[in-house]
Amino acid sequence: MEKLLLFIDYAGIAVFAITGCLVAAKKQMDIVSFVFLGTVTGIGGGTARDLVLGNLPVLWVQEPTYLMTCVVTSIFMFFVARHVASFQKWIVWGDAIGTAVFTVSGTKIAFDAGAHWSVCITMGVMTAVVGGIIRDLLAGEPSLIMRKEIYATACAFGAAVFLLVQPYEPHIAVYMGIAACFALRAAAIVWRLHLPGYRWAEDAHEKRRASDGSAP
Amino acid sequence: MEKLLLFIDYAGIAVFAITGCLVAAKKQMDIVSFVFLGTVTGIGGGTARDLVLGNLPVLWVQEPTYLMTCVVTSIFMFFVARHVASFQKWIVWGDAIGTAVFTVSGTKIAFDAGAHWSVCITMGVMTAVVGGIIRDLLAGEPSLIMRKEIYATACAFGAAVFLLVQPYEPHIAVYMGIAACFALRAAAIVWRLHLPGYRWAEDAHEKRRASDGSAP
Amino acid sequence: MEKLLLFIDYAGIAVFAITGCLVAAKKQMDIVSFVFLGTVTGIGGGTARDLVLGNLPVLWVQEPTYLMTCVVTSIFMFFVARHVASFQKWIVWGDAIGTAVFTVSGTKIAFDAGAHWSVCITMGVMTAVVGGIIRDLLAGEPSLIMRKEIYATACAFGAAVFLLVQPYEPHIAVYMGIAACFALRAAAIVWRLHLPGYRWAEDAHEKRRASDGSAP
Repeated sequence: MEKLLLFIDYAGIAVFAITGCLVAAKKQMDIVSFVFLGTVTGIGGGTARDLVLGNLPVLWVQEPTYLMTCVVTSIFMFFVARHVASFQKWIVWGDAIGTAVFTVSGTKIAFDAGAHWSVCITMGVMTAVVGGIIRDLLAGEPSLIMRKEIYATACAFGAAVFLLVQPYEPHIAVYMGIAACFALRAAAIVWRLHLPGYRWAEDAHEKRRASDGSAP
Repeated sequence: MEKLLLFIDYAGIAVFAITGCLVAAKKQMDIVSFVFLGTVTGIGGGTARDLVLGNLPVLWVQEPTYLMTCVVTSIFMFFVARHVASFQKWIVWGDAIGTAVFTVSGTKIAFDAGAHWSVCITMGVMTAVVGGIIRDLLAGEPSLIMRKEIYATACAFGAAVFLLVQPYEPHIAVYMGIAACFALRAAAIVWRLHLPGYRWAEDAHEKRRASDGSAP
Repeated sequence: MEKLLLFIDYAGIAVFAITGCLVAAKKQMDIVSFVFLGTVTGIGGGTARDLVLGNLPVLWVQEPTYLMTCVVTSIFMFFVARHVASFQKWIVWGDAIGTAVFTVSGTKIAFDAGAHWSVCITMGVMTAVVGGIIRDLLAGEPSLIMRKEIYATACAFGAAVFLLVQPYEPHIAVYMGIAACFALRAAAIVWRLHLPGYRWAEDAHEKRRASDGSAP
């Protein structure tokens, strides 16, 4: 079971790197930028978490296999991205699994370090989303947090489930958290769920529009 | 007096979170993005300072009340932002107070750690402005440093006053620094002061424009 | 020889700060933003490296001369940038030297700390490019990694040469690495070399374009 988690961990990093490379492909970057963007996307979240918690040097300096996974995946992607792109639907699901695993592993690392529950949830969300946020910033794409998808929400939910189950059933808490995060994200993907965006007082806007004469 | 500073500290973080949420509202983000942007704006500056100085784990991991203040403020804002927006003038002043307090607290932390005066000033400015810079980056707004307002200038001034007064009157240095920073920022707000922007050799430009035929 | 390296180190930071200031000048920023952007560009890469490796507080907190170099250079630039701009060609070459030195010094720091070779190369590249990436982000310019210039590639090459020579000729490895990085970057500047960008399956695109009627 440990081994399964470790495998998912590496697979998750690779999938994250792939999402970085798909953006790089869209922007027609060269191979070095593929590696750069893929790597930043793959290990950015874990790096931010380790920095904030003071787990230094950060994980991938201690375990370069994570770094190598990103580099190799990105080089590979430079040559096959056009084929992978037609599998983009699969990527979304891989990303969902990676997100779920990273969320709970981030939460668990903070929890094991004795952090407050609010910090644990924050670490879970950070581990899962910071890589994607840096990817979007560097590529000049609208940021993850601007889209109304249920993404960070699913992370916060999975982290909370892990924390709630942990005191009672420590052995299955990790799996429950992963399942909860994945389930919510999956539901969001399948049924295109999204949270309502903030709306300014509509009346005022509509009045103004009406007086502009653009309404009948 | 200690308690007053602590109160202002939390109030400052809340005001910073509110400025993050106002940007989120403008972009019609959902509640999770409100929390994300509000929190990053509120604690981003202190996080950057703690990272650079090596005060790890960062403050809000040790004192989750700071984190909670941002989260609660942001959730609250999601429901009331449209009303707060009409108080935007007040926000500017709250932001000015928060900026002044963060500047001096950042400077003091570096000073107490025995840092060089140039580092102390840098830490003061970082604590006050980095949250806003990340907010603007994530929301795709033109960065704080692109606007010609007197903002970072006021921070540097307040930090310098604190450092100059500190050796002579350690008890009032904090208040002098806060007052100096706030006074300059307030003057900038009231009289719309700004520093002159850099100008490329005007002659050359005007000559070129003239030869384009766009001038008579 | 040590002294030469130290001189190049400071000169490199100053040149990096100058590139930041040239962007600030283009955007007509005020003097405080010049200092901000110049400083971030000058010491951003080293800061990122120190954070990730856990060398805290970061270098410029321990050696404020680096910080002062950036600040003084930036203030100076505010008054002379229009003249320096006509020397922009020189800047490109100064930047190439700075890049080469930073790459190898970053790689060496990681190597001396016993890091894996992949981490050493990453640290070299990070030290050299992160400052420029933050500069572009803050100024709203298209990121360094979006351009197809050979830049990070030269860094990775120089870092690799340093690592390959180090076990055999430790005394000259630093100079070999710097020379290799500089030579590749210089070739890229002179002959406008660039790596090929990623291309989506051209057939599909061309077919679509043809069916749009935009081809004869």
